[in-house]
Formats: sequence, structure tokens, C-alpha cells
Amino acid sequence: MSIVWTSRYALRAKGVKSSAIRELLKITQQPEMISFAGGLPANDVFPIDRIEQSCQKILEENAVTALQYGETEGYRPLRDMIARHIARYGIKVQAENVLMTTGSQQALDLIGKLLINAGDRVLVEAPTYLGALQAFNMYGAEYLSVPCDEYGLRTDLLEAPLRLGPKFMYVLPNFQNPGGTTLAEGRRRALVTLASRYGIPIVEDDPYGQLRYEGEHLPPLVVLDRENVRGDGGYTIGNVIYLSTFSKTLAPGLRLGWVVAPPEVIAKLVQLKQSADLHTSTFAQVVAYEVARGNFLDEHVKKLRNVYRERRDVMLAALEEYFPSEVTWTRPEGGLFLWVTLPVGMDASTLFNEALKQNVAFVPGDSFFAPNGQEQEGSRHLRLNFSNARPEQIREGIRRLSVAVKSQMQNHE
Amino acid sequence: MSIVWTSRYALRAKGVKSSAIRELLKITQQPEMISFAGGLPANDVFPIDRIEQSCQKILEENAVTALQYGETEGYRPLRDMIARHIARYGIKVQAENVLMTTGSQQALDLIGKLLINAGDRVLVEAPTYLGALQAFNMYGAEYLSVPCDEYGLRTDLLEAPLRLGPKFMYVLPNFQNPGGTTLAEGRRRALVTLASRYGIPIVEDDPYGQLRYEGEHLPPLVVLDRENVRGDGGYTIGNVIYLSTFSKTLAPGLRLGWVVAPPEVIAKLVQLKQSADLHTSTFAQVVAYEVARGNFLDEHVKKLRNVYRERRDVMLAALEEYFPSEVTWTRPEGGLFLWVTLPVGMDASTLFNEALKQNVAFVPGDSFFAPNGQEQEGSRHLRLNFSNARPEQIREGIRRLSVAVKSQMQNHE
Repeated sequence: MSIVWTSRYALRAKGVKSSAIRELLKITQQPEMISFAGGLPANDVFPIDRIEQSCQKILEENAVTALQYGETEGYRPLRDMIARHIARYGIKVQAENVLMTTGSQQALDLIGKLLINAGDRVLVEAPTYLGALQAFNMYGAEYLSVPCDEYGLRTDLLEAPLRLGPKFMYVLPNFQNPGGTTLAEGRRRALVTLASRYGIPIVEDDPYGQLRYEGEHLPPLVVLDRENVRGDGGYTIGNVIYLSTFSKTLAPGLRLGWVVAPPEVIAKLVQLKQSADLHTSTFAQVVAYEVARGNFLDEHVKKLRNVYRERRDVMLAALEEYFPSEVTWTRPEGGLFLWVTLPVGMDASTLFNEALKQNVAFVPGDSFFAPNGQEQEGSRHLRLNFSNARPEQIREGIRRLSVAVKSQMQNHE
Repeated sequence: MSIVWTSRYALRAKGVKSSAIRELLKITQQPEMISFAGGLPANDVFPIDRIEQSCQKILEENAVTALQYGETEGYRPLRDMIARHIARYGIKVQAENVLMTTGSQQALDLIGKLLINAGDRVLVEAPTYLGALQAFNMYGAEYLSVPCDEYGLRTDLLEAPLRLGPKFMYVLPNFQNPGGTTLAEGRRRALVTLASRYGIPIVEDDPYGQLRYEGEHLPPLVVLDRENVRGDGGYTIGNVIYLSTFSKTLAPGLRLGWVVAPPEVIAKLVQLKQSADLHTSTFAQVVAYEVARGNFLDEHVKKLRNVYRERRDVMLAALEEYFPSEVTWTRPEGGLFLWVTLPVGMDASTLFNEALKQNVAFVPGDSFFAPNGQEQEGSRHLRLNFSNARPEQIREGIRRLSVAVKSQMQNHE
């Protein structure tokens, strides 16, 4: 008897959407396509020379550490460096509060594994990051969705879902993926106060925080939680797990993210991570440490801000120039994405097929809504990435997309 | 109200043993300690120059691929190379059958996630690999254990547990961790025949297969399954998922393992992997490809075989010279470990504490038995690693360990 895997072993994952997106992204890799679909950093700003010098240095001076098994928690000097770097934002922690993960996606997966039992509800923004939904779906999460506006999560609508007892909240306060919006400071304070009042932890996902192109940095939730709610009681107990990554500031191919959390949360995540992949590549960690050290990362991020600010501005200008006035979009102060809203009656998935004919791609909005019956909320939206394509491609891509939009609007009339 | 994480959010993991081992391994990192506890490759045989040249080459010629996001399946040229390399052992597959993972540990985790629902039974060898138990425990696995002797898994004892309907079998046929034993060819054939008859898939874990120091390579289960049971029907349907890794042949710090399986199994594992960490470090994958290509990996493995054969022989000779005749041990034909059996009445955990006083460490055997009431089977056993310490350290470490053993035997008398 042979095993027919597909029938005997039903897939535990609710991964349909994930697969659809993966197939979509493969289509968009055709060379003639201008893709606003991915969330990829620019190909032309990786710090290649510095990485090459760093590889040479570590292989000559620190090769065994870089190539041998390492601690599950991560490479200690890198964790120390991260603790130092985030202190500037008021996140005052030690290496013991930092766990290195195989990209932020693994942090989301480990948090899902730790906190979600099947049927538990997770409070998310509507829209929210697709990859988080994928990670949490895997553990049988259900969702409470709270809408966002141009100032981020509508905290005025938060108490009713909080009363329903979500296991935790998942929030992207800075240049949200997909919305491009930033949570206003007053709302940040309201959010941590409500979280504390109802005893609901917050997972604060901040992959883009350093990529701010205008305006002032706003305090992270993890800092407000500590300051406003807990006084100066240190970081032993806190409501917030904070996530970030090198994927947007150095290179996603290194797959390096991290979790900042109270030590007892880190201890549990370490146990889960050990069984998940033992530890994140020591080689990638030692390289990242050597690349980032000194002042390099800060200088590199300044360069990225200039490159991405220009691309955002080119996309905004092209939208203004080419798009019909019935279409609106967000104006992100940072990050990689903006969020387009089509007129009532238009459908982003239909537009997607039309756009492919014009050799331009995006991600239709419904993928960013939790699978709790609200997916149709996304049907009038599209996410556009402005970090990966070069300025002249952005302009041409928006022109192509406007042709598809106008064609759809005519069909609709 | 603040969240006290430890009380409100009970850890889902059954990770106690894992944590104990982790703490143990930290103790053994003290400089005066000679450790046979880990499973680490030798520090002095990493191909550092080749890795340095490879880093330089890829950063000059292929940097964007190495640094950007990649496909969840893995770097295509590396998957093609792996398919070519394993063909020599009769495993005739395409890149579509290969999924790159963040070390073999992630493969075990994803397989657990795919196949194990809480309460499902997994058939394992007694003893078996600790890391697999950790991965499967996480999904609520229960276990059916089948004892091993010097020829590996006792296939004559296999039918009774197979009738109890395990979800799958997990087997390490070559130079087993921890036993050091190799599954005899006749038993391999019996195993795949029984697996097919009862419709029970096999997970064949082969991290050490290339590290054979004497004797002839034996056919992998995945090949016997295809040849003997399925005729020449290709690799679309098969009972065996095959796992291997670069951790023992190149460097564990790269965290590169892989799964070979029928395409429909790969497709499901890809979905699970996408939500787990998106993909394994493209940087590590491109480096590994560049390092391994041409004839380099084969030549490097020949060197490893010579180094590790000598260390095995030094350990076997030292055991013969120093240990009392009441103690026995396996004589592995390859791999990294051997397995010591103490006289009846002696306890490896007690010996462990005595050994630490002598500045020598090992892993007590009970960690390698499934948590189904058979852990005490391990109490008379210890696992010794012979790959990491240098020959003179091995000899001195075995001498120290013999002092602890003799001291314990006197106490016991």
C-alpha cells in the first residue's frame, strides 16, 4: 500500500490565501512587469562593499564563531548592539530582553505558537499585515478587527472588542503594512492605557520605524506602556512584545529579526525556537553585527531614507498626475507602502487582472483583512510598494496602472 | 493591570528536558572542561578559505540574489545541486522534490506541524534523536518506541507497534544519534516492506550519511521504498520523507538542511515554511552553493572522514585502555557519536555529576528516550561525541571519565 499524501494527511494549515499570493508574486517576476506587489527593499542600495569587507574580516578573525552552532538566543554582541540601538527610542533593555529570530516572520510564528490556542481571538487592525495573519492562522486564531483611518487604529472603537477578551492585540504603529498610516501619539497613549486596563498584551510590529522620511519619530508602544502605566518599574513585566528586523535596513536575505520582551517571555520563546530551528544562522548574525557596528547602520539608513523618500514622492506625484480624481490614497510618512482606495463599486481583484495586461502588478486589498467575514472590506483597495522599483519605473508603472483603472471605471459606468 | 506572563499564559511547550540540556551545554562550555556532550563538528576543519573566496565571489557577481528575499522553496541552483549530489546514492529526484530548511531541525518541526495532531503516535527508535522528540513534543505527539541493537532498529519487533497505527515512523539509519549504530541492509528492506504493508510513512533522517569511515554505503530507505515497493514508478508517490543537512559537511552556522519528498508533500511543507520564516537565508544558501560547487564538497568530506575516523579511533582505543571491562560501547562505522552502556545498577545522571568534577562532560542517556515511561531505559547509557574535541583531548577526557566511572563503581559495590 502506498501513501497518497494528499488524501491521507489533510493539511493543517489554512494556507489558501498564502499560496495565491505566492503564485501572484511569481507572475510579477516576469521581466517586462513593473511590480508594486512585493515588499522588497531596493536592489540597488544593499551595502554590498561593506558586507564583503565584513565577511572577509569575520572569516579571518572570528570564523569558528560564525560557522559553528550558536546559542538559541542569538549572537550575544549583536543582541547587545540591538539593545544599544533601540535605547535611542527610549526602549531601555538588556541583551536578555532580545531574542534573534529567522526574520520577523519567525517572531510572529513563535508568538502564535506561544499564545494562540485554536479558537483564541487576536485583535488586529483592518487592514493588517498578511504574513501575521498567515502565522496566526496556523494556530487556529480567530480575529477581532478594528478599522484604521489616516491616523491608524481607531482607538475610539477599541473597548467593545477588548471586552470580548482577545488573547492579544497585533499592531503596526509606524507606516503600517499595508495602509502606510502611522498611529497618532494620542492614540498610542489611549491604546496602551486600554491594553493595561483590560489586561490584553500588545504585539508591536515595527519593521519600518527607522525608515521615516518626514515628521518626528513617535514613541513606541513598548515605551509608553512602561512610562505611562508601569512607572519606572523596569522591564521585567510589561504588556508589550516589540518586534523589529534588519530586513528593511540591511538585507532581507540575511533573515534576521528580533523580539524584545520581558525575560520570562523570552525564555519561553527560546524554548519554542530551539525546537523550531535550534538557532538563527550564526554566520548571518556575525556578518550583520560586523556590517552594522560603529556608525555604519545609521549612515546607511540615512541613505535609504533619501532613496525611498524620492521613490515615495515620485509615486505620489505620478498618482496625482495620472489617476482619476475619484481614486484616493494614503500619504505615508515612511515605510514601503501606500494604500489606494477605488471608487464604490470597483473591485481591486478585477483591476488586478486588467493591470497584468498592462504589465503592472500590485496586491489586491482583500488579502490584508482577517478571515472573519470582513475580507470584502478590502475589495476596493490596493497596496502599492514604492521601495523596490526605480523612480522612472514607478512613474511608468503608475501610468500603466492608471490605464487599467480608467478602463475599469468605464466598464463600471 | 499589568500582565504577569508566566501565570496568565501557560507555556504550550513540553520543553523541560530541552531546557535542562541547554543549561547542561552551557556548563560544558567552561574552558577547562573537555566536552563530549555536544554534537558539534570540529572547529578546525571548517573550509574557511573557500567560504571567504565564495563570499567575495557572490558579493561581486550575484549580490542581489544573495541579499534580497528569495523563494520559500530555496535557492534553485542549490536545490538542483542537492538533487544531483544525492543521485549517487540512488535518490533520483528533481529540484521540485527538494525544500531548503533552516537546518534539519526546521524540517523536523515542519513535519511535526504537518503530520502530528495532539495525541497522534509517532514510532521512534529507542534511543532516538533528542531534537526530533523536542520538535514532535511541541505538537502533542505520543510515542511508540522500538528498541535498537547493534544492527539498528529491531524490525522483528515492529509489527505490534505498527498495528497500533502510528502516524509515521522516525528513523536514523546511518550512524544513529545517539547510538552510533547503522541499520543493517536486511532490516532496511524489512522496514520499507512493513511500512508499505501497514501504510505508515517513514521520516528518514540522514545528517551523517556521508561521514562513513569504513564499510560500504547502504541503500537509503527512500531508495528501497521506491525500488522494492513501487517499482520504477518515479517519485510522485512514496512512503519516505528524506532529510539531510550541510551542518555536518560544511558548517552548522549556515543553518542549511533540506527535505526530499513527493511534490505534494513539498507543496504543503512550503506553505508551512512560508508562515514559519518566509524562507531560509538566501545569503547562506548562495554561499553554500558557491562553496560546494564543482568538486569541493566531495573533497572536503574526504578530509572530514579522515579527521573524524582518527578521533573515533582515538576514543575507542582510550575506552579500551582506561575503562573497566564491565562497561561496553558501540563501534560506529561513521557519524559523530558512540553510546556507552554502564553495568546494571549504575546511573548515568549520577555519573554525570561525578564527571563534571573531573572536568569532562557527556549527555546522560535518558534524554534520548521518548517520554512514554521508557526514559529509565536510558539511565545506564551515555552519549559520547568524538568529532569536536582534538585527539589529545579525547584521550585525556576518556581518562578523566574513567576516573569518574571507577569512582562510581566503587560506590556501587
